[in-house]
Amino acid sequence: MNDVEDLTRRLLAGETRALARAISIIEDRLPEAREIIRSIYPRSGKAPIIGITGPPGAGKSTLVDGLTESLRGAGRRVGIVAVDPSSAFSGGAVLGDRVRMQRHSTDEGVFIRSMATRGQFGGLARATVDAADLMDAAGYQTVILETVGVGQDEVDVVRVADVVVLVLVPGMGDDIQTIKAGIMEIPDIFVLNKADRDGIDRLHADVKNMLSLLDPASRVGPAPAILRTVAARGEGIGELRGAIDEFLKRATPDAVAARRFDRSRERLLNLLRERILEWAGGPASGGTFDDLVEQVAGRSLDPHSAADRLLATFAPPAKR
Amino acid sequence: MNDVEDLTRRLLAGETRALARAISIIEDRLPEAREIIRSIYPRSGKAPIIGITGPPGAGKSTLVDGLTESLRGAGRRVGIVAVDPSSAFSGGAVLGDRVRMQRHSTDEGVFIRSMATRGQFGGLARATVDAADLMDAAGYQTVILETVGVGQDEVDVVRVADVVVLVLVPGMGDDIQTIKAGIMEIPDIFVLNKADRDGIDRLHADVKNMLSLLDPASRVGPAPAILRTVAARGEGIGELRGAIDEFLKRATPDAVAARRFDRSRERLLNLLRERILEWAGGPASGGTFDDLVEQVAGRSLDPHSAADRLLATFAPPAKR
Repeated sequence: MNDVEDLTRRLLAGETRALARAISIIEDRLPEAREIIRSIYPRSGKAPIIGITGPPGAGKSTLVDGLTESLRGAGRRVGIVAVDPSSAFSGGAVLGDRVRMQRHSTDEGVFIRSMATRGQFGGLARATVDAADLMDAAGYQTVILETVGVGQDEVDVVRVADVVVLVLVPGMGDDIQTIKAGIMEIPDIFVLNKADRDGIDRLHADVKNMLSLLDPASRVGPAPAILRTVAARGEGIGELRGAIDEFLKRATPDAVAARRFDRSRERLLNLLRERILEWAGGPASGGTFDDLVEQVAGRSLDPHSAADRLLATFAPPAKR
Repeated sequence: MNDVEDLTRRLLAGETRALARAISIIEDRLPEAREIIRSIYPRSGKAPIIGITGPPGAGKSTLVDGLTESLRGAGRRVGIVAVDPSSAFSGGAVLGDRVRMQRHSTDEGVFIRSMATRGQFGGLARATVDAADLMDAAGYQTVILETVGVGQDEVDVVRVADVVVLVLVPGMGDDIQTIKAGIMEIPDIFVLNKADRDGIDRLHADVKNMLSLLDPASRVGPAPAILRTVAARGEGIGELRGAIDEFLKRATPDAVAARRFDRSRERLLNLLRERILEWAGGPASGGTFDDLVEQVAGRSLDPHSAADRLLATFAPPAKR
């Protein structure tokens, strides 16, 4: 039995150290990553994936905390993938949130993993969904993906979720604008957090109004639920769990199949994009890439012809 | 002489109808698009590209309007590419902005083109920079790219600019958070617009404070300028033009070469990504893509193996 086989066996037996190691391998794109996914993939797909997104400061972590407690109370083992945007700045509130979540760290029924936003090759969405599958295969019965809802990379993360929850708070009127502008997609459930604050009625009316303007052709299925919570005091968490369960239960087999297809399509496209960009930027293209960039920069070759030349040298992965 | 040759010839002679047609061809990805870019590319690269970005409601269009007037006053012909985020909602403020800019529509020294955010295959950044090159080749001496600074697609748009201006306004404290979180990159020039509003000093201090926390390793060159404007009254526009000119002039030949290389690299990567995703999702892959997605969705094949199989069928563009 080789190392990867041993690691996979221990992961499937629910050993947390093996799970942590496997996620690191995936995050660091080590060569073993594919083999691990290949072996655990048939054993995953059981746990629903709950995506929690929203702007910085909306209280996502507190909400995830409360939701986790509620799920634990029902005896479910919970895996959490929390995306930390990478930053040119040191420290800050982001880290503080993670520290707070440590309160579940002594509960072996909860597995929390932070992941950083990736660089130019993307790969965040790929790594987070792979991590979710690993947690699923290791016996966690619900997986929560928590990510800030700004930036394409982050939006891609929740696209693979079975249910998407968008957290908004009063006094950030621009978020509605962001959704209206089509940058953020319409979620399955709206959570209006910090509902004890001024402006909650206005926010609620804004969301309702926005949904009423929605082009019917752009959405299938029932209108999204709108819930109010005060996550810091645990208010509305039970209702949120209820709404999530109902959403998942209500889905017809056809809708589930369609969503799984879309999710898998999204996943494969992410992977393809990552592969091709890694190949182009890496040593595999034999330095061709930088030469071509130089020619494009010097206007002696146009970008479309450069792309043609580069793709003509593409070696199928089987030969690599 | 074929149609494309004729179109290109008229474009290079500065005929606006030919320019408009060529941009449409590029936006719609018609087969002629590559040939057009190939022929005009050696004639482009002269006009500086000014990227103007910021959140919805920051007053970007008004600022672009003022900047255009200032450039026109100096006798420069100006091309503008304005990105309209696509939306599931009808109408709204976005359209209003565009209508306002029509005030330059009778000035033949100004060419304005709106572009919509693209769907899943991306391509917005590719189309906008191609449009900028066409304008440049048609004799517009400065090109302005205006885009909302939220979402990866939109951020990619300004990455190809020679100078990036970020517009912020008081009372949107979250934007600073967005930059801190590494979602928005540090611009070359900060414009604090609507500077007659309460909170302008606070915003200024926040930006300064944020810049002081910046990891020195993450930025080369001098610190970004911070300017205050009231674009609606034309205040500070002259200073902005001065700051842009100074930034462009101050750059050493090495810095210019490095930026051109980065820009071209970015451009080639965007193009590659678009090509491979188009190929995978399109008829060229012979329906393989959907079959593989079905298998991934049904958990009978893992996504990494599916990506391998798909890439193995990749046909270099020369053979297509």
